[in-house]
Amino acid sequence: MQMSNRISGFQCSPIRRLVPMARAAKERGVHVIHLNIGQPDIKTPKEALDAIHNYKDETIAYGLSEGEVGLRKALLEYYKKMGVDDLTIDDIMITTGGSEAIQFTFITLCDPYDEFIIPEPYYTNVATFANVAMVRLRPVTSSSSNGFILPSIDAFEDKINKKTMGILLCSPNNPTGHVYTEEELLALLEMCKRHDIFLVVDEVYREFCYDGKKFTSVLSFPEYADRVICIDSFSKRFSMCGSRIGAIVTKNKEFMENCLKMAQARLCSPAVEQVAAEAALSAPQSYIDGTVAEYEKRRNILVSEMQKIEGVRVNMPKGAFYFVADLPVDDAEKFAIWMLNDFSYKGATVMFAPAEGFYWTEGLGKCQARFAYVLNENELKLAAECLKVGLKTYRKEVMHV
Amino acid sequence: MQMSNRISGFQCSPIRRLVPMARAAKERGVHVIHLNIGQPDIKTPKEALDAIHNYKDETIAYGLSEGEVGLRKALLEYYKKMGVDDLTIDDIMITTGGSEAIQFTFITLCDPYDEFIIPEPYYTNVATFANVAMVRLRPVTSSSSNGFILPSIDAFEDKINKKTMGILLCSPNNPTGHVYTEEELLALLEMCKRHDIFLVVDEVYREFCYDGKKFTSVLSFPEYADRVICIDSFSKRFSMCGSRIGAIVTKNKEFMENCLKMAQARLCSPAVEQVAAEAALSAPQSYIDGTVAEYEKRRNILVSEMQKIEGVRVNMPKGAFYFVADLPVDDAEKFAIWMLNDFSYKGATVMFAPAEGFYWTEGLGKCQARFAYVLNENELKLAAECLKVGLKTYRKEVMHV
Repeated sequence: MQMSNRISGFQCSPIRRLVPMARAAKERGVHVIHLNIGQPDIKTPKEALDAIHNYKDETIAYGLSEGEVGLRKALLEYYKKMGVDDLTIDDIMITTGGSEAIQFTFITLCDPYDEFIIPEPYYTNVATFANVAMVRLRPVTSSSSNGFILPSIDAFEDKINKKTMGILLCSPNNPTGHVYTEEELLALLEMCKRHDIFLVVDEVYREFCYDGKKFTSVLSFPEYADRVICIDSFSKRFSMCGSRIGAIVTKNKEFMENCLKMAQARLCSPAVEQVAAEAALSAPQSYIDGTVAEYEKRRNILVSEMQKIEGVRVNMPKGAFYFVADLPVDDAEKFAIWMLNDFSYKGATVMFAPAEGFYWTEGLGKCQARFAYVLNENELKLAAECLKVGLKTYRKEVMHV
Repeated sequence: MQMSNRISGFQCSPIRRLVPMARAAKERGVHVIHLNIGQPDIKTPKEALDAIHNYKDETIAYGLSEGEVGLRKALLEYYKKMGVDDLTIDDIMITTGGSEAIQFTFITLCDPYDEFIIPEPYYTNVATFANVAMVRLRPVTSSSSNGFILPSIDAFEDKINKKTMGILLCSPNNPTGHVYTEEELLALLEMCKRHDIFLVVDEVYREFCYDGKKFTSVLSFPEYADRVICIDSFSKRFSMCGSRIGAIVTKNKEFMENCLKMAQARLCSPAVEQVAAEAALSAPQSYIDGTVAEYEKRRNILVSEMQKIEGVRVNMPKGAFYFVADLPVDDAEKFAIWMLNDFSYKGATVMFAPAEGFYWTEGLGKCQARFAYVLNENELKLAAECLKVGLKTYRKEVMHV
C-alpha cells in the first residue's frame, strides 16, 4: 500500500513545520505573536452575525451548486459599485472559499503536465492546488529590490510554450503587498491575447489598498473578458475567513459550464455561511473603510518599526496585509525555529513565515520572511521589539557575527 | 483557449439535463414530485439549529485544517456508541462534506491513470471525483435480479492489476439500498489484504437500515484497520445536507498525514456549520430513531405501490433511502424527459434519476431508474399514481405497445 506520488512527494511550506513548535512555546508560557497568518482580529460585520443568529430554515438543505441566487445578486450589486456593470448572475459561481475557486480553475483549464505561469513569491497554497491538479507552475521571479512589481513581459513570454494555459496573479498580492497597476494588467492581457491564454487574478484583498491608491480589477477590461477569470472571497474583506465563501467570476461561458460539473459533484457551498455572506454585503461602507484604515495604521507601525532594525529591508507595501522582508540572517527558517524554541523577550516571541515556501525556484527566499500585520497596535509594537532583540541575539549567539 | 480534456470531455449524469425541464414544468404550473434527489424534508435537529442561533464568536475565524477538536471529540463518542472504541481524534479529519472526503481519498491514493474498483450502479458523483483526479474507475456490475448484493470476489479479482489502489463501496448503498453484510465486507477485506490495496467505504447512510437489520461498519475490523478508510457525513443522518460537513476516518497515519496537506491548502471546513454539526451529535437517540422509522414507512409505501405497477420490478431495499427499479420502457431517460415535458396527472408529475448515470459500463441501466423516498406519505402515493398512469400512457402513445 502506498500513497500517490503527487501527494507523498509534495513538500509542504516550511510554515507547517513550525506549528508544533509554536504550540510547545505556548505550553511553556511564552506569548507567541502570530505574524505568520492572515487571521484578522477584526470583527465580522454585525449584519453577517445577525443573519446567522436569525437563520430561518428548519432543514439545512442543499442549495444550488452555482451558489444561492440572493448571494449572487448581492455580489452583482457589489461589483457594480466598484464600477463593473456588465456582469449577470450567470457570470458568478459561489465556491467554498477562494481556495476551491483556484482548485476548480486549474482543473477546468489544465490536464496533467499543463502549465501555469506565476510571479514568485506567490500564495503558497497555490503549490498544493497545482500539485493536486498535476499542473506545472512556471515561476517568474519578482524582486524585493523594486517592491515586487510585475517582472518584464519578456520574462513571462520566455516561459510560454504550448502547454501554457494561463497566468495566475494575486492583486493586492499575498505575500508581497504589491498592487498591480492598470498598465501592468493591460500589458499582461495583451500578451495573454497574443498567446491565446487565460489571465486569472486572485483579488480577495481588493479593498486593502493604501495611501489612497486606486485598485484596478481585472474585470474592468471588457475587451479581454473572455480570457479573464477573477477569484474572489469574503474571508478577508469581511473578516470571516472561517466561513469559506468565495467566488469565480468570468464571462467565459465555456469555462463556467465546465467548472459547474465540479460544483455539481460537490453539491453546494455551505448554506448557513452563504446566508451570512449575503448579509455581510449589506454592511455599510464604513465597515470596509474602518477596516482598511485600521490595516493601514497597522502597516505603518510594523513597517516603520521593522525598517528601524539594522539589516532588515522592507519596502512599504501598497496593499493586502502582508509584506516580504529581507532579514540579516543565514536562513530565515532556522531563525524562525530558533525564535520559537530558544528565544523570548518580555515573555513573548514572534512567529512569521519563512519565505522559501512562497518561491517555486529552489534556493530563493532563504533570507526572507513574510509578515502579516493583522494584529492590533500593541501586539505589533511588541513583535517588532522581539524581532529586533531576537535578530541581534541570533546573529551574535548562533551566527557569531 | 480551450478547457482541459478531463473536464470538457466529461459527460455529466443525465439527471443534470433534466433540471431545466423540471423548472419549465413548474413554470407551466405542474407540481413536480422530486424522487430524483436525496434532499429530505425532515427537520435538522433542534440542537444544531440552536447552536447556529447562539453562535458566539464575533470573528468567524479560520479553524484547524483537520477540523475542530470539539467536533472530532463528539464524533469519537458517536463512534464509541456504535461499538468502535479504538479511535483517537487523530484518526478523524473533518471534511467539507463526504464529497471532499472522497475527492481527498482519490488524490491521496492515486496518481493519474491509477485505478479504483467500484461496484456499479454507484453514487454518480464519484465519476466526477475520479475524473478530476484522473483515476480510472473499474466497475464490477451488481444485479437488480438479486437485490444488488456484492458481486463475487472473483469478479473483483479479475479487475485487479498493478494500477489498482483500492475498492470503493457505499453501504448502505446509494443508489441500490443494499446494506453490505459482515461476511461481504470480510471477504473483500481479505482480498484487499491479499492484493495489498485499500478498502474505502462511504457510510453516510449508516443509520438507515430497515427491518431491524444490523449495520456493520468497516471500522469494526481492527485487524484490517491500516487498509480501511471510512467516509462519513452529517448530511443525511441529521438532515443537514446544506452544511457540507463530512469526515474521513482511518487509522492509517501515512494516509492522514498526506491527506492533511490538501486539508491545509484549503485552510478549514466551514466554521459555523462545524458548530452546528457538533451540536447535532448531542441530539437524543429518538431523533435518529424517529427519522429511520419515518424513512422505513416511506420506503414501504413507495416500494409496495410501485410493485403493484405492471412491468415494474423493485426489490425491497434494505437501507439508505433509494432504490433502483426496472421500468417497462425502451429508455428510462426518454421516459423521464417525457414525464417532465409531456405528462401530468392530477396536476402533478414525477422526476426521477435515469440509472444510466449510475453505471460506468456503457449501455447498462438503460431501462432502470433510481427513486429516492425522502418525501412524505401523500407525496409518495401521488408519485406512484403518476408513475402508474405515466407508464401506461407512455407505453401506449410513445412505444405503441
